[in-house]
Amino acid sequence: MTYCVALALDQGIVMLSDTRTNAGPDNLASFSKLSVVEKQGDRVIALMASGNLACTQAIIARLTEGVGFNAGDREPMTLWTVPTMYDAACLVGEAVRQAFLRDGEALAAQNYQFDVNFLLAGEIAGSGMHLFMVYSAGNFIEATQDTPFLQIGETKYGKPILDRVAKYDIPLEDAVKLACISMDSTLRSNFSVGLPADLLVIKRYALRVSHRHRMHADDPYFTIIQNSWSDSLRAAYRALPTPPWELI
Amino acid sequence: MTYCVALALDQGIVMLSDTRTNAGPDNLASFSKLSVVEKQGDRVIALMASGNLACTQAIIARLTEGVGFNAGDREPMTLWTVPTMYDAACLVGEAVRQAFLRDGEALAAQNYQFDVNFLLAGEIAGSGMHLFMVYSAGNFIEATQDTPFLQIGETKYGKPILDRVAKYDIPLEDAVKLACISMDSTLRSNFSVGLPADLLVIKRYALRVSHRHRMHADDPYFTIIQNSWSDSLRAAYRALPTPPWELI
Repeated sequence: MTYCVALALDQGIVMLSDTRTNAGPDNLASFSKLSVVEKQGDRVIALMASGNLACTQAIIARLTEGVGFNAGDREPMTLWTVPTMYDAACLVGEAVRQAFLRDGEALAAQNYQFDVNFLLAGEIAGSGMHLFMVYSAGNFIEATQDTPFLQIGETKYGKPILDRVAKYDIPLEDAVKLACISMDSTLRSNFSVGLPADLLVIKRYALRVSHRHRMHADDPYFTIIQNSWSDSLRAAYRALPTPPWELI
Repeated sequence: MTYCVALALDQGIVMLSDTRTNAGPDNLASFSKLSVVEKQGDRVIALMASGNLACTQAIIARLTEGVGFNAGDREPMTLWTVPTMYDAACLVGEAVRQAFLRDGEALAAQNYQFDVNFLLAGEIAGSGMHLFMVYSAGNFIEATQDTPFLQIGETKYGKPILDRVAKYDIPLEDAVKLACISMDSTLRSNFSVGLPADLLVIKRYALRVSHRHRMHADDPYFTIIQNSWSDSLRAAYRALPTPPWELI
């Protein structure tokens, strides 16, 4: 399983993913789910993936080696060459569709689902900052100011705190804190999501990676978040009033 | 959708369920998912249901009207007559299997799944207090001191707080508080779970309902829990340290 969360905010983008993959409970492994294309001053694009690892790896390879569109008059494109972030989302969608055409039938024949999801975020000079979620069918949605976060994978455990706190105008540092809390809630409730976690921050107009950081189990900041959040929740729970009804 | 949670603790049992059913987003309705069989001094048994409403209603009707076991030499039993809580769990399982035999094929023919889950809890004089979860196949598990809570329906949003705080030795009043927090987290993140919520408390050895309460949107206690918990989470989030890394 996987948990990836991304926030597209006034100040920039924050993305956090776990690294655990599992093919059954006795086959756990660690694979980065974060890919970054960075050409400073021109573009910085990040991709986080969930779903069938063979499919997502094939799609990412295709996105850096070149995806041909159906129309014969277009050169194969890559994330290094697409002119806008919208084109990048279309390119990821096209790569997903081509992977489905290649593998979908063989997977279905063995009762496996073609199941991939991507968070695509970043900025290309002149075309603004964007965050998209690309589905298994190659279609996609974009985060907006009303709903500035998107999640893929095991999304539910970490969603309540995002629903309460994630706002478009929070500072990037607060968004990092929030993503860590959301990840911690997921880690605690689902063993198929696991550390280390890959954190990426991209400031608006920076056109480069502003911060990238792999947080292992002994990461000082993540450990503080885990312990403090746990303590705070327990304290908040203790401080709430008990019900006023008599139990007979 | 549905959310039901039950805790089986040293002092007794706490159960809480929402009442929303939906067949598509434009077909919401309110149905109690809580059924109680109470014969003071002899037994108090509560059942909470999730899944296909036609199936769960049919099963509950059968459980009060009489379920015949396969062996011809046994009289039809009901929750009013089973001698122990373990027998009650077997009876629910048998009713589920009979409902599947009756409806499973017709449902499958129209691509509907036979999907029901039950939380069964209570005490029958002389056979102790128990909490079971009965699956669609009619098999069941029992809560233990190690894992004193069980959930059915839309379980994930409300699970992190249970994972952190639910312990076998907490007082019943705290368990009510905890169930309300867990329900609130679910309500906020999934519109297919909705108020009013049905709360039931059964003290160990009481052999009667200790407290039953329907909490509507204006319920004073539930409103306090919702507001205080939300405020506490925001305050806890604000109080956490921001990350120490410089963003370039």
